[in-house]
Amino acid sequence: MTKECTLAEKILTGMRSILGDDSVNLHEPSFLGNESRYVEECLRSTNVASEGQFVSQFESMLAEYTGAQHVIAVSSGTAALHVALLLVGVSRDDEVLVPDLSFIATANSVAYCSAIPHFVDVEEEHCGIRVPKLQEYLESCSTQEDGVCVNRQTGRRIKAIIPMHAFGHPVDMDSLLEVAEKFSLDVVEDAAEALGSFYKGRHAGTLGHVGVLSFNGNKIITTGGGGALLTDDPELAANARHITRTAKLPHRWEYIHDQVGYNYRLPNLNAAIGVAQMEKLPLFLDRKRSLFAAYAKVIAPIQGVKLICESQDCRSNYWLQTLILDQDFQHERDSILSTTNDAGFVTRPAWQSLSRSKPFRASPSMKDMQSVDLVNRLINLPSSSFLG
Amino acid sequence: MTKECTLAEKILTGMRSILGDDSVNLHEPSFLGNESRYVEECLRSTNVASEGQFVSQFESMLAEYTGAQHVIAVSSGTAALHVALLLVGVSRDDEVLVPDLSFIATANSVAYCSAIPHFVDVEEEHCGIRVPKLQEYLESCSTQEDGVCVNRQTGRRIKAIIPMHAFGHPVDMDSLLEVAEKFSLDVVEDAAEALGSFYKGRHAGTLGHVGVLSFNGNKIITTGGGGALLTDDPELAANARHITRTAKLPHRWEYIHDQVGYNYRLPNLNAAIGVAQMEKLPLFLDRKRSLFAAYAKVIAPIQGVKLICESQDCRSNYWLQTLILDQDFQHERDSILSTTNDAGFVTRPAWQSLSRSKPFRASPSMKDMQSVDLVNRLINLPSSSFLG
Repeated sequence: MTKECTLAEKILTGMRSILGDDSVNLHEPSFLGNESRYVEECLRSTNVASEGQFVSQFESMLAEYTGAQHVIAVSSGTAALHVALLLVGVSRDDEVLVPDLSFIATANSVAYCSAIPHFVDVEEEHCGIRVPKLQEYLESCSTQEDGVCVNRQTGRRIKAIIPMHAFGHPVDMDSLLEVAEKFSLDVVEDAAEALGSFYKGRHAGTLGHVGVLSFNGNKIITTGGGGALLTDDPELAANARHITRTAKLPHRWEYIHDQVGYNYRLPNLNAAIGVAQMEKLPLFLDRKRSLFAAYAKVIAPIQGVKLICESQDCRSNYWLQTLILDQDFQHERDSILSTTNDAGFVTRPAWQSLSRSKPFRASPSMKDMQSVDLVNRLINLPSSSFLG
Repeated sequence: MTKECTLAEKILTGMRSILGDDSVNLHEPSFLGNESRYVEECLRSTNVASEGQFVSQFESMLAEYTGAQHVIAVSSGTAALHVALLLVGVSRDDEVLVPDLSFIATANSVAYCSAIPHFVDVEEEHCGIRVPKLQEYLESCSTQEDGVCVNRQTGRRIKAIIPMHAFGHPVDMDSLLEVAEKFSLDVVEDAAEALGSFYKGRHAGTLGHVGVLSFNGNKIITTGGGGALLTDDPELAANARHITRTAKLPHRWEYIHDQVGYNYRLPNLNAAIGVAQMEKLPLFLDRKRSLFAAYAKVIAPIQGVKLICESQDCRSNYWLQTLILDQDFQHERDSILSTTNDAGFVTRPAWQSLSRSKPFRASPSMKDMQSVDLVNRLINLPSSSFLG
């Protein structure tokens, strides 16, 4: 590597040594197992839509793997987030604390409840909610009234918080749960990206009141479109199943619905793919870990950039491999993105800071968030498990 | 048939002569064509989730078949209804006119917009909105203020109306559109049950501002779960595509979303099934028509009951075959339901009157609706296309 190499060129050279010369997407699924067989079985049964064998089996496999007492499969991670918020009682004009760095669905799901996202800062190391700053902030901006956390400025109830395990790296949940407890906040864990990630031996999404998984096409396993709710609370679980299936009461023939419900069930057809994908999850996790090691090796010698690595207490699924540019090098981001994309390697920045996004810029948020700067320093690298 | 036969026994005997002695479900799909082949192709491409070849092809086939200028595939008929209402501008605290006889999703979709369903009566012959009564009712209950229809009693804007083509039988759309025009109501056609149904040669769902189809497992064709929006308005179509795909703006790499959007796209995997199903739609329609003819023949001689038949101006898809009990025989409904279900033939009543349903009983509605009585006189018979 000559002295004239730009940062972008150095990174590209490193990527080429792992990925070769052909084009590579950011993330693609692998169908190495029983996907075709189970779909064929599902079609033969003609039960492609409603509750069926594959939905039950997929839910059982997820429960066993994550340790959640109850799993309810739904049509998307976004649907799961929406329902999770309804389940903990988020209502019109409530505020919900949301990390400033997340996919827009996290904030949208709050809006679906006619509630207001209230953005909080993230830490740099793993891009999750920055808990010490959160505690200070809540002390200064809220009061407790009869066990309810109230935003002093807006007068609205702050009902819940959504820790999001960014790129598969678990948030420091012990500290977060302590703050949530102290300020009477319900905890909806957005583990959309974190199937296969563990915090102190417990699976992401099983530490709060309700957790959410996603099986979108870009996730570690996919069902085409799909998601799931995780909870240990049998009552929440029963409610989740009820309202995601149009809130119909059981009856031999009558169609009686006892509340406004949703058509959010996961079709049996999609669950059939999910069962086959779950069978391969350990393999995908191994390969992603190998890919991380390979990237780490080529990135380590490059000045100005580092790779996000799991913390000591956690086991990450390494869903996406993420570069963080040092602050002095953040002006290089677009040049790295264009150099790598021009070379056929699909790389992507993080999401826009939610507090700066058009739909939510009028929402309340912490001041001076480092997330606003951090989003300009993150680059996700091609991370499909078959690359590992 | 001896004189001692009850109405239930007569109907059961008639059904046996068509359906045989084995158990029969209310409605099951048939996978007779390229379903497996296309799913296999979709898995091989690894593009099971996002916009893909099968989504485009499915949308094109629907556009060609229905004559709609634009078709946007989505994850369910319920999602399509929700988005259709947003597209025509239904907002918080608006009222939307909904037939009292419909699946609960029609009213739920209004609630998702934080709007209020306002129930109107249906006619007996085809169970669609009773247009002459609607006109009289709007004359008495509403005023026009600057081209806006206002409910005199509640003071709220009545923004739209949702004609629903019950069991596949088209509503009298010419009269309905005239009333909608007169009272400045946007028309969202709920054609969830009506793929393959035509009103005066035009496909159901293409006569109002936006139309909605469903491909749930019980519909004439299925994608596992799925729906579609139909419109001739290019701007509405572009908005529909935008907000059902998280409202992301096109950009080489940035994730910029310009409004609260939804994750309502149809996965490519489900669209693959849809393409194969669309290839068989003409066959399914023929068979359903034969099944209707067979039922009509055995039901005709039975006193106290008739079968819903397409009207002169319409071609119905005969999605479900529906019995109407004469008023003098409505007390027989539960005995017919239990006799036929006990015999293994799954029959079902219509839905609960929406104005009497728990989630919507506080909503405004017409007085003295015959729908409340009619729901106790309807019985749907096994209607899968393979029975025809």
